[in-house]
Amino acid sequence: MVSVPMFEVIAFDADDTLWHNETVFQATEKQFAELLAGYHKPEWVRERLFATETRNLRHFGYGVKGFILSMIETAIELTEGKIRGDEIHHIIRWGHEMLRAPVQLLDGVRDTVEALAGRHRLMLLTKGDLFDQESKLARSGLGEHFSDVQIVSEKNATTYQRVISRSGVQPGQFLMIGNSLKSDVIPALDAGAMAIHIPYELMWAHEKVRDDHGREITQLATISELPEWLAKRS
Amino acid sequence: MVSVPMFEVIAFDADDTLWHNETVFQATEKQFAELLAGYHKPEWVRERLFATETRNLRHFGYGVKGFILSMIETAIELTEGKIRGDEIHHIIRWGHEMLRAPVQLLDGVRDTVEALAGRHRLMLLTKGDLFDQESKLARSGLGEHFSDVQIVSEKNATTYQRVISRSGVQPGQFLMIGNSLKSDVIPALDAGAMAIHIPYELMWAHEKVRDDHGREITQLATISELPEWLAKRS
Repeated sequence: MVSVPMFEVIAFDADDTLWHNETVFQATEKQFAELLAGYHKPEWVRERLFATETRNLRHFGYGVKGFILSMIETAIELTEGKIRGDEIHHIIRWGHEMLRAPVQLLDGVRDTVEALAGRHRLMLLTKGDLFDQESKLARSGLGEHFSDVQIVSEKNATTYQRVISRSGVQPGQFLMIGNSLKSDVIPALDAGAMAIHIPYELMWAHEKVRDDHGREITQLATISELPEWLAKRS
Repeated sequence: MVSVPMFEVIAFDADDTLWHNETVFQATEKQFAELLAGYHKPEWVRERLFATETRNLRHFGYGVKGFILSMIETAIELTEGKIRGDEIHHIIRWGHEMLRAPVQLLDGVRDTVEALAGRHRLMLLTKGDLFDQESKLARSGLGEHFSDVQIVSEKNATTYQRVISRSGVQPGQFLMIGNSLKSDVIPALDAGAMAIHIPYELMWAHEKVRDDHGREITQLATISELPEWLAKRS
């Protein structure tokens, strides 16, 4: 007897769920603080960069291009326009490097994705920049396993409802996997789907987590536990 | 008797189909050539900018952020790094202005979209940057009339097949409207949908155009002719 999988569509968040992302940004931020070391202390550079990024978010959205533009803007501001073109060129080059860098998969991702691809339709569902994410999926070598890439500007319950409805399944047949409670798990549950939280840096293991409504959040320590979790539900 | 519209989904390209876009980029390019007037002739500045944009396209994709980064990169290159931070600041400011500028609708767009919204599901289907396009749709005041925004990285027949299938209609119920034969019309026809070409700058009117396969291309002079064209087919 062939068992029918309960979840027809499994959607994965991308950054820090399938591959490392935050660490790449942090490494570039460190170089940026070094570039401006002659002008300001690293903490102040980081603080101003964060302020610029926050201010620009509503115009730039997420992604490498907006990050690079925010670094250039911060560098000009913090040097009162004295920074030279050849110094700004370093920042531009970091951007190109970030966009071309090999994608570092999290532990267990390749095996898990390969194991699930035959039984479920896999979707990449992420905020960010369409070009960045499609390029990262291609560089990850996992592209063939994903039948769909959905880039959304906000991950709220309405977004999940729309994505689920468009994928032609019932909410109960849709499983979302991600490292963010706020973006990946809670709004997906609100939309009637199932969702699993896989924290990027595991601070606690198999502890029961509840959201504001007292709803229990399913959490796995690593993505490698996913096939077994699914097997129990097929 | 209520007539059923033949086309359940009408998808519109965005830039230079619903609102002016090319003219906004050209105006900024002119300012850019003026900024570098002390170094190079305007024609050479434009030529180098175009070369940088082309080189960066596969990493940046389309949109304002990539355009701004390419301008900064070109400015550094053309001044051999001598350009100052405060001059680069001008370029960054143009970017912010482009991203905030009022959206200028093409003639007839508002009336046509309002007229069609009650009878069809309207979709925005465009290449480019998700943030840019959602923001432009919001600024255009037409947002409420569109039930769906789809940003794609390439507009080929496969893309159209995927979008049509996802929208839950048959190809014959899907109508694509756009100013580009190559991106909007031919691949949509190849996917089995209907498509109408509305050139951005009308160089010929109501002349019969055929594609490479001898297939006749439907062309309208302005979007205002669309409701009448549809009425004949309902």
